[in-house]
Amino acid sequence: METISIKEVFKNYKSLDEVRLVGWVRSNRDSGSIGFISFFDGTCINSVQLVYKKTDTENFDEARTVRTGSAIMVEGKVVPSIKENQNFEILLKGFKILKQSDEDYPLQKKEHTSEFLRSIAHLRQRTNKFNTVMKIRSEIAFAIHNFFHQNDFVWVSTPIITSNDAEGAGENFYVSSKEKNFFDKNATLTVSGQLHAEAYAQAYKRVYTFGPTFRAEKSNTNRHISEFWMVEPEVAFCDINQLMFLIETFVKYLIRFALKNCKEEIAFLNKSTDSGLAQRLLDVVDAEFVKVEYKEAIRILKSKISEGHRFEDNDIYFGKDLASEHEKYLCEVIYNKPVFLYNFPQEIKAFYMKQNHDGTTVAACDLLVPGIGEIVGGSQREDDYKKIVKRCQSFGIKTDEIDWYLNLRRYGYFKSSGFGLGFERFLMYITGINNIKDVIPFPRSYGPINF
Amino acid sequence: METISIKEVFKNYKSLDEVRLVGWVRSNRDSGSIGFISFFDGTCINSVQLVYKKTDTENFDEARTVRTGSAIMVEGKVVPSIKENQNFEILLKGFKILKQSDEDYPLQKKEHTSEFLRSIAHLRQRTNKFNTVMKIRSEIAFAIHNFFHQNDFVWVSTPIITSNDAEGAGENFYVSSKEKNFFDKNATLTVSGQLHAEAYAQAYKRVYTFGPTFRAEKSNTNRHISEFWMVEPEVAFCDINQLMFLIETFVKYLIRFALKNCKEEIAFLNKSTDSGLAQRLLDVVDAEFVKVEYKEAIRILKSKISEGHRFEDNDIYFGKDLASEHEKYLCEVIYNKPVFLYNFPQEIKAFYMKQNHDGTTVAACDLLVPGIGEIVGGSQREDDYKKIVKRCQSFGIKTDEIDWYLNLRRYGYFKSSGFGLGFERFLMYITGINNIKDVIPFPRSYGPINF
Repeated sequence: METISIKEVFKNYKSLDEVRLVGWVRSNRDSGSIGFISFFDGTCINSVQLVYKKTDTENFDEARTVRTGSAIMVEGKVVPSIKENQNFEILLKGFKILKQSDEDYPLQKKEHTSEFLRSIAHLRQRTNKFNTVMKIRSEIAFAIHNFFHQNDFVWVSTPIITSNDAEGAGENFYVSSKEKNFFDKNATLTVSGQLHAEAYAQAYKRVYTFGPTFRAEKSNTNRHISEFWMVEPEVAFCDINQLMFLIETFVKYLIRFALKNCKEEIAFLNKSTDSGLAQRLLDVVDAEFVKVEYKEAIRILKSKISEGHRFEDNDIYFGKDLASEHEKYLCEVIYNKPVFLYNFPQEIKAFYMKQNHDGTTVAACDLLVPGIGEIVGGSQREDDYKKIVKRCQSFGIKTDEIDWYLNLRRYGYFKSSGFGLGFERFLMYITGINNIKDVIPFPRSYGPINF
Repeated sequence: METISIKEVFKNYKSLDEVRLVGWVRSNRDSGSIGFISFFDGTCINSVQLVYKKTDTENFDEARTVRTGSAIMVEGKVVPSIKENQNFEILLKGFKILKQSDEDYPLQKKEHTSEFLRSIAHLRQRTNKFNTVMKIRSEIAFAIHNFFHQNDFVWVSTPIITSNDAEGAGENFYVSSKEKNFFDKNATLTVSGQLHAEAYAQAYKRVYTFGPTFRAEKSNTNRHISEFWMVEPEVAFCDINQLMFLIETFVKYLIRFALKNCKEEIAFLNKSTDSGLAQRLLDVVDAEFVKVEYKEAIRILKSKISEGHRFEDNDIYFGKDLASEHEKYLCEVIYNKPVFLYNFPQEIKAFYMKQNHDGTTVAACDLLVPGIGEIVGGSQREDDYKKIVKRCQSFGIKTDEIDWYLNLRRYGYFKSSGFGLGFERFLMYITGINNIKDVIPFPRSYGPINF
């Protein structure tokens, strides 16, 4: 008999008779002449109930002894289940332990804290919760590639080892080898693929990079890790308004993809982790995103303060970098939908952003979403060679370290815009998981590297 | 008028009348009252010929002055071309320079060497050749994700920063930050995602990782770089024979995808770079891959030597790590098709490979293809805890550094197999490009980091 997957069994249980399955034991409850195994094989997030009976099951005694975590092969009949919330179960005829798990297997049936599970990052993906989260991670990654491929973007793998420190601001990791001066410069791990993506946008019009980026941040919060994945598209001949349209289209595509292709996964998380999740995602898909200039946001916040609203920080003025409490207030209280803030004061934004005609702002935008705050940051890039060089100087950036990048402006660089979406931040949003270390397989941060 | 892409123009030139295009100038030839611009926009590898005439073109004088590399917007009529090998050209009505390129633009019309182009890695993708190669790179990457997604593999992003040195063998890069002891261990850049992928295969059955890997090799050959991408699938409950089937299916899928979706790109390379390319790819798709045990390969090579064939190294014996001349001979002369070599002597293979019952070989396989040699290496993994610990010890690997990995064997690890395909090596094969630095956007190797 051919082995079939649990995914197939769930799809076709009504028409299936005898099946053979290979997978792992989540739990085994032996009640004398009958026993129940919760069984999974990783092909879908659901477990199947296997029933073994003294009267029906060969190797009945072996089945009684199988431990949680073990690999087994079983054969049996798909039969209707009397249990609620379970359409079928499998009455076993054949049973075989392929590999008995040791008794100290850490994932016994009881609930485990996320903290404990982080300490067994080599096993936690076998739990319902992490199996679900990492499956969603995989699906969203595919959706990202799919979206860009459908829209004629070329994927560019920007380098991990780089030499410029333009955005690192002292939070770089350094790379060395046993061979002294392996590289001719200080080598660092990339903090963004944007600069390299810009060079490729000038050849393909539409490109994106999707890869790991690094920040040597000591902060050990729920929202910080040292190694995370970023999606960074870059589009030539694109201005800030077209960019905001692209961001909205992209974010909605990903959420729609998740709602359609991860239906069971999101339903599971909605039930187990975050009861507002599914509705929040639906709301975003249906909403028309609001566009608010930064200066208008400042005006609104000030007027709310003068009407008596109190933030932790009430010192609001043009030129201030808004805190997350202000962003949340705008997005959740004032508008109650996703909000683009754009045209920020130039002194709080990066050197490569396009200076607007007003002489004070740059064509940058942040997308804020209810429940989490900023998930995307983007900008139109400065395309004027002299202006960008001047901006570098005012930021104290050594222009000779990135002359290749600045020189792009001298060779047919008319316009270019792009954005960055932190993949793990976005996954937190899609899954309702509130610690970034729980949406990436083997998280890296200040302190231990245990795996 | 809406802007349309060159890709669309090529598709529909027969039915198109007036079009507006935005892109860049590859060259401009002005012959008095008429001029010709070779124009590209990155949406396909072809250029379009734009014709400007004193009698037809507004801004005729501006058109005459536009330099190579400049960004332009044009409007005109799609008309039949009298030139051979060119179905249409565009007779311009409107012409506008969006951004004039500086006179020192390095990509002037003459042919450039690959070496020179490597020195302008921020611009070389604007040439026909590199535009084609990096487009194929993007398409093959998409094909990889597509293949695995269709076949229910879960994508796992294995960590870049790791702490174990199991496979590095002294060729690791080390990671540090300004903060002393940012990590609690010696942190290195990953040389393979396999160990982590194995942990995930024990939860999902089928997983793959596709990301950057690193080797601090000093060798500066055509085939070595320090940063390259690897595809590493891992499948639980899979043995070496099923693995070879997967490899064959996968490699054929990727080549078929390239032949179908990169038709023009491969035709271009076949004409310009490697006239045997297309046929070589077709041959692989049609071939049934040969499976030869290592010991049989040794027997064949020895008998050929005794019949008078001479290699550079004729000292062939069981236990020898075959050189590429031997592999090529097997694959190109003896069989003339792709060949799996398998069941290698354990002393020349890695500690994690499954020991066969013969006590001397391990269940490893290499795929050799005509024209390039080894492109895939894989193995069934040792699933016996005691055996793998013993193998670690015999290799001098500290077991406590990878105890989490070894412990997987204690928790339901019945079988697992996987392989690694070096993405750039494979791209060299698909494109006929003979330097690995020319199939990755910004290559890193011993010496300079210029971008």
